[in-house]
Amino acid sequence: MISSGQLDSLATQLIAGDRVALARAMTLVESIHPLHQEPATRLLDRIMSHTGRAKRLGITGVPGAGKSTFLEALGGYLLTLGLKVAIIAIDPSSPLSGGSILGDKTRMSMLSREQHAFIRPVPTGGYLGGTSRRTRELMLLCEAAGYDVVIVETVGVGQSEVDIAHLVDCFLSLQIAGAGDELQGIKKGIMEMADIVVINKDDGENHARVMLTRQMYQSSLSIMRRKYPEWAPRVLTCSALLQQGIGQVWSDIEDFYRQMAQQDRLTVLRKQQHLDAMRKQIEEQTLQALFARQDIQERYRQALQQVEGHHASPRAAVNDVTHYILDKLNH
Amino acid sequence: MISSGQLDSLATQLIAGDRVALARAMTLVESIHPLHQEPATRLLDRIMSHTGRAKRLGITGVPGAGKSTFLEALGGYLLTLGLKVAIIAIDPSSPLSGGSILGDKTRMSMLSREQHAFIRPVPTGGYLGGTSRRTRELMLLCEAAGYDVVIVETVGVGQSEVDIAHLVDCFLSLQIAGAGDELQGIKKGIMEMADIVVINKDDGENHARVMLTRQMYQSSLSIMRRKYPEWAPRVLTCSALLQQGIGQVWSDIEDFYRQMAQQDRLTVLRKQQHLDAMRKQIEEQTLQALFARQDIQERYRQALQQVEGHHASPRAAVNDVTHYILDKLNH
Repeated sequence: MISSGQLDSLATQLIAGDRVALARAMTLVESIHPLHQEPATRLLDRIMSHTGRAKRLGITGVPGAGKSTFLEALGGYLLTLGLKVAIIAIDPSSPLSGGSILGDKTRMSMLSREQHAFIRPVPTGGYLGGTSRRTRELMLLCEAAGYDVVIVETVGVGQSEVDIAHLVDCFLSLQIAGAGDELQGIKKGIMEMADIVVINKDDGENHARVMLTRQMYQSSLSIMRRKYPEWAPRVLTCSALLQQGIGQVWSDIEDFYRQMAQQDRLTVLRKQQHLDAMRKQIEEQTLQALFARQDIQERYRQALQQVEGHHASPRAAVNDVTHYILDKLNH
Repeated sequence: MISSGQLDSLATQLIAGDRVALARAMTLVESIHPLHQEPATRLLDRIMSHTGRAKRLGITGVPGAGKSTFLEALGGYLLTLGLKVAIIAIDPSSPLSGGSILGDKTRMSMLSREQHAFIRPVPTGGYLGGTSRRTRELMLLCEAAGYDVVIVETVGVGQSEVDIAHLVDCFLSLQIAGAGDELQGIKKGIMEMADIVVINKDDGENHARVMLTRQMYQSSLSIMRRKYPEWAPRVLTCSALLQQGIGQVWSDIEDFYRQMAQQDRLTVLRKQQHLDAMRKQIEEQTLQALFARQDIQERYRQALQQVEGHHASPRAAVNDVTHYILDKLNH
């Protein structure tokens, strides 16, 4: 068990910016052990008033886009500005082992040695669908520990990309120049979510192809409906390897925040994100608890048998179970 | 109001194969009018024992793959075998008007004049997410009306394709030959769901490209995990325009059913589909009813305010509302 005093001291150290306390708090919040749920909730409650001041960035990119190099370059640049940077690296590639492939020691090796940078790999395997919730909580811990920029990064494939978009203020999609045909398929999904598209590897002979790709993205963006009236998504280029164009990327991110401060758009966005996330979690928890009840399981089983035997339509069976649950609530 | 006698007579006529009765039953089942829900459920209950004997096919294809021509060719072929064919054409392209673009009179004009073919366009716009449920119900009505083959078709884009896969026994993906690069993006999603891939437009100069595309699909399939141990997905080619290869497609569909009869795989599949669909509907209906309650809305609103004011963590707020709902159930 974790005593109230231990929890207070952990929270105090975390808020003071202690790295070890931050790491321990993360482990507590990530834990799925039943005994850890209550202290984790109390810890989160304790630090909430210290959250909300960081810039929340999401960065995705297909494998090979140079995400690690880009994060090292951007992170390093932010450190030179005197900012503290936390990176939460979501790794959807290891559902079986629970271990994190992307989070191994060879990734972001320069950044990981810096005093004002904090890197946390998050294996998604153990979470059974709760990755978004726990990532959000890890972000809050980083904010409370005084990190100015909290970056969530993931491989840009499928659902993980969509999930991240709901956790961050500014969504940055890292791309590389490709053949025209390749782009067609992935473009629409990216464009719908990205606030800033950065085409990496703009170096040497690659330059002409990067410019062409940039043009394609720009013309696509020009015909798409905007996510926010205040912000027209931009397409930038950089070479993370040569550390060129990184300052411009940050300058555009700052522009994003300036624009989004109009009409309190950022506040509205964060409020909506919170609302959606909480609603989803309440729904998931409620349904899980409902279907764990024996009486509801039994009613459900019976209804299914009726349908299997062609005695009742699925619609009738669904209504039967739904009404059973709702009747319980009214008594 | 619809009297009990009227409903009985409608059910009897439908089971006798009356086309007008089938169309009227479909309109009743599709209706979102509150007064129509109870008779629709009763009608579905009445016809359930006459369902389950049709072959349920799903057919998708990107725009331009020649879906209408293929359906006319396949439908026409099935009629020559003495089979009755129903086609439910889902049209996700008209969310605003509620009208069906794909379902206009120029589509499948030959088939629509045939006595033993029945074509029903389904606009998805008006259903607000309930397309799967209603499509399933329309399929049951067609089965009860004696149709031997019930085909659900949709444009092969995104979610609608996934939804259809849960409604049918055999999922057929209609493709055309394309440049290698184009294929890469779409291949994986298709391969995960398709039981049979048919490459259309295998005519004239196109033949070499079709063969190349076929090879690519085949090699992709060979390295993918199978959906069912009993069935190795096949890649076929045809020319719907010249009505060539259609007999082979049907013969492979029949093979699919023969293989899936082993170990009662088809029965298990249909049972699981029913189970999943019912579970999802119960969950949706329950959540909708829960969040329509004023006390739960109020509690939810308060919890959100706590989070907004940084007084409580999202986790604490979620637990508060969830426990409130579950406590209600236990009293």
